[in-house]
Amino acid sequence: MLEQIIIILQQKCFLDPQKPVLIGVSGGGDSLCLLDLLTRSGYPVVVAHFNHALRAEAAADARFVEGFAGKLGLPFVLGQADVFDYAQTVGLSVEEAARHLRYTFLFEKAHQVGAQAVAVAHQADDQVETILMHLLRGSGLSGLRGMRYWTLPRPWSEEIPLVRPLLEFWREEIDAYLWERNIEPVVDKTNRDTTIFRNRLRHELVPYLSTYNTGIRQVIWRMGKVLDSENELVEGMVDSAWEETYTGQGDGYLSFRYHVLSMQPKGLQRRLIRRGISLLRPGLRDVDFSTTELALDFLDTPTKSGRLVLAAGLMILLEEELLWLADQAADLPRSFWPQLPSSHDGCKHLTLELPGVVRLEHGWVLACDLNKQVEPAYRSALDNTDMFQAWIDASKVRFPLTIRCRRPGERFYPAGLAGRSVKVSDFMINVKMPARARANWPLVFSDDEMVWIPGYRLAQASLVSDSTAQVAHLHLFKMDET
Amino acid sequence: MLEQIIIILQQKCFLDPQKPVLIGVSGGGDSLCLLDLLTRSGYPVVVAHFNHALRAEAAADARFVEGFAGKLGLPFVLGQADVFDYAQTVGLSVEEAARHLRYTFLFEKAHQVGAQAVAVAHQADDQVETILMHLLRGSGLSGLRGMRYWTLPRPWSEEIPLVRPLLEFWREEIDAYLWERNIEPVVDKTNRDTTIFRNRLRHELVPYLSTYNTGIRQVIWRMGKVLDSENELVEGMVDSAWEETYTGQGDGYLSFRYHVLSMQPKGLQRRLIRRGISLLRPGLRDVDFSTTELALDFLDTPTKSGRLVLAAGLMILLEEELLWLADQAADLPRSFWPQLPSSHDGCKHLTLELPGVVRLEHGWVLACDLNKQVEPAYRSALDNTDMFQAWIDASKVRFPLTIRCRRPGERFYPAGLAGRSVKVSDFMINVKMPARARANWPLVFSDDEMVWIPGYRLAQASLVSDSTAQVAHLHLFKMDET
Repeated sequence: MLEQIIIILQQKCFLDPQKPVLIGVSGGGDSLCLLDLLTRSGYPVVVAHFNHALRAEAAADARFVEGFAGKLGLPFVLGQADVFDYAQTVGLSVEEAARHLRYTFLFEKAHQVGAQAVAVAHQADDQVETILMHLLRGSGLSGLRGMRYWTLPRPWSEEIPLVRPLLEFWREEIDAYLWERNIEPVVDKTNRDTTIFRNRLRHELVPYLSTYNTGIRQVIWRMGKVLDSENELVEGMVDSAWEETYTGQGDGYLSFRYHVLSMQPKGLQRRLIRRGISLLRPGLRDVDFSTTELALDFLDTPTKSGRLVLAAGLMILLEEELLWLADQAADLPRSFWPQLPSSHDGCKHLTLELPGVVRLEHGWVLACDLNKQVEPAYRSALDNTDMFQAWIDASKVRFPLTIRCRRPGERFYPAGLAGRSVKVSDFMINVKMPARARANWPLVFSDDEMVWIPGYRLAQASLVSDSTAQVAHLHLFKMDET
Repeated sequence: MLEQIIIILQQKCFLDPQKPVLIGVSGGGDSLCLLDLLTRSGYPVVVAHFNHALRAEAAADARFVEGFAGKLGLPFVLGQADVFDYAQTVGLSVEEAARHLRYTFLFEKAHQVGAQAVAVAHQADDQVETILMHLLRGSGLSGLRGMRYWTLPRPWSEEIPLVRPLLEFWREEIDAYLWERNIEPVVDKTNRDTTIFRNRLRHELVPYLSTYNTGIRQVIWRMGKVLDSENELVEGMVDSAWEETYTGQGDGYLSFRYHVLSMQPKGLQRRLIRRGISLLRPGLRDVDFSTTELALDFLDTPTKSGRLVLAAGLMILLEEELLWLADQAADLPRSFWPQLPSSHDGCKHLTLELPGVVRLEHGWVLACDLNKQVEPAYRSALDNTDMFQAWIDASKVRFPLTIRCRRPGERFYPAGLAGRSVKVSDFMINVKMPARARANWPLVFSDDEMVWIPGYRLAQASLVSDSTAQVAHLHLFKMDET
């Protein structure tokens, strides 16, 4: 076992035999076995014990571990916290709370003593139980693969890894090792308490499953190993797809390129959405299956409103090219739309000369100039495919033009509508202008008559015709803000 | 349920409502439900029943299904075979044998009647049981994802798909449908026989797991769905990697580009090896975990002999650039090595003029010509990096040269060995010439003195020196055989 562990420590846990390792020791057999092996492998070891103070013997256990470390001449650090209190405060189960406090302690100490890693003594039986637990609670590949030899466990650590060198040793092997080395561990009586979910797996489920297949532990352990390597493959694909689809993150929101995301295979879409959710909700340990499926259905067939509430206060929102994943309360950025600067009583009124420019928010600019050559393709407003440019008959408007936002009840005569007028607000809904952008969308007026809704439609009255003598060219564009 | 099934039939089973579907009907509730739904959806249906003759009621069941089809005015086809006899002959379990005979029958009939697909009535509970069965027996992603809506089930069919439209409906939903439609199925009493593995899963394991999580069926079903889409991703990667690594297949063997294969991530290597094994052993339903791991270890660290027996009479063999996966008895091709044509008493003796060529096996050619310009880089034989070309002092050999294979005990004086001689057979071993190629490897002699072992070494005596007046150029190469 010592020879095997020396190889595992270097090749699977990536440890340097010269640098210190902090090891979490409960006093139970697994952790004493790992402590003994680490010491014999020549690693500088710091022994850490966290007293959960949940059991009567807790203080005695702490003294036992301190004594054990002392006999080996190893430094010892002790942690303690009120687990019950913490569980109530943050609304976690006692088990979850204990785990959180324990790892927080271990990584704080590891940082303080300059340890290269935190080592814990999970072994092959724990691995099997972990996989079964994920299976029973519902999980994809990332849960079914089980625990890993080396990992950076967020949120506790972004730098110091957590390593588990005993993952391939069974309880029997560890017991035999302890017997041979004459090491006597403390007995945690709660280990036999089958009201604790994990203990029930250990003492009831695994023996029960063995009646179907006597090699069930090996079967599950191997499955974890195979799935781990296949999960690596999938994660590699997700990383590339993330690069292609993810466009950025802000306070309570992030966004994807919708058309790229919606072209991905279902399996990748699911992973990308999950990764997005976990960035916005790092606390959420497992994203609910139906939440993700809702989002996937939305990608296939967006709702009419272009938005959908998922769960946990998150919504998904489709606007033009962008798919937003956001807190329902998040203030999404408007910088990718043209918006009028705000004044204290609404949007600002601006004037546009011929020639002239006005500056809008976030680098957007609206420009007007004389068009010397009337391009035939744009003589009809409806042939124009670039809706952010327009050509108008300069004699049919009065300069300077006015740039302002819409007014309640205001109407306009869109080109191509045979002289009928529509309410501006209805028009904006019909052409699917993003709802959040409507109030401050820049509109072009000649006096109080609407000339152009940039990005969408010219008014009938100012269209270029055969008798047009002078053409004005309007252009809305975004300048690079850097 | 009817509305849902109409969508599933088209979007998940890819069926054309105009074309006939052959449906396997046992007479049980699931198959009658599917039959009723298919008929109501307007598909032309052919009813097929396979009489396993394993139970007392079997003949009555067959008559029942025939009558049911008759009442609906649907064509009916009946199959029957001696399952026990077949199971004994081919060495399968009775369950496996029945399954094999049933699907063989269904696809034969489907072919005869021109059906677009064979439909079977597996539902959501069957799906959960299938996944659990794979889990208990040990499986990777491809087993844990469960059954699929659409599949080409080899070895029964390469063209007509097997579809399972009921995969998302639970037993309770189907029972409710039957009740509502007033359909009374036959009861298969063996369904309650828990000595049958699957029945034990249904009646014992699933209820037991529900004590851990009441939603266990949904959890497992969803897991299958997620893993299916992730398996698709992995399969896509395997397809590309297969293109890059697989070089071809023959009778009882196939080969990979070793250096490309050994650079792949572990997860891909495992899949590629498994795919290779399943091509050579299509009967093997699941490739054993340890078999694949043996092969993966070999990829990392080939054995000294360059070969390893895996299992099921298969071996893995590394030769130069190629990794072979082969029957132990397979006659691997020699076409990628230069080989002398065989004569009845060994290899053929050939003569090589100056200038001249001799043709070897499989398009290999050995050529000799006068080299007008002695290239300085090749003045020393040891500087030559292309071991399939050699430059010799024409005055130190006698033309025509002789091309033949080695003789027992024969020795030669390799260049660079300070005049010492070695046994040709030992030399071949030392330079790692593939064992299978040694006997017929073409060697170049001047009378009976060895001049060149193509691909490896010149003899000391014929080296070009400063006093060389005339240089002969020897060249061994493979011509395109097309």
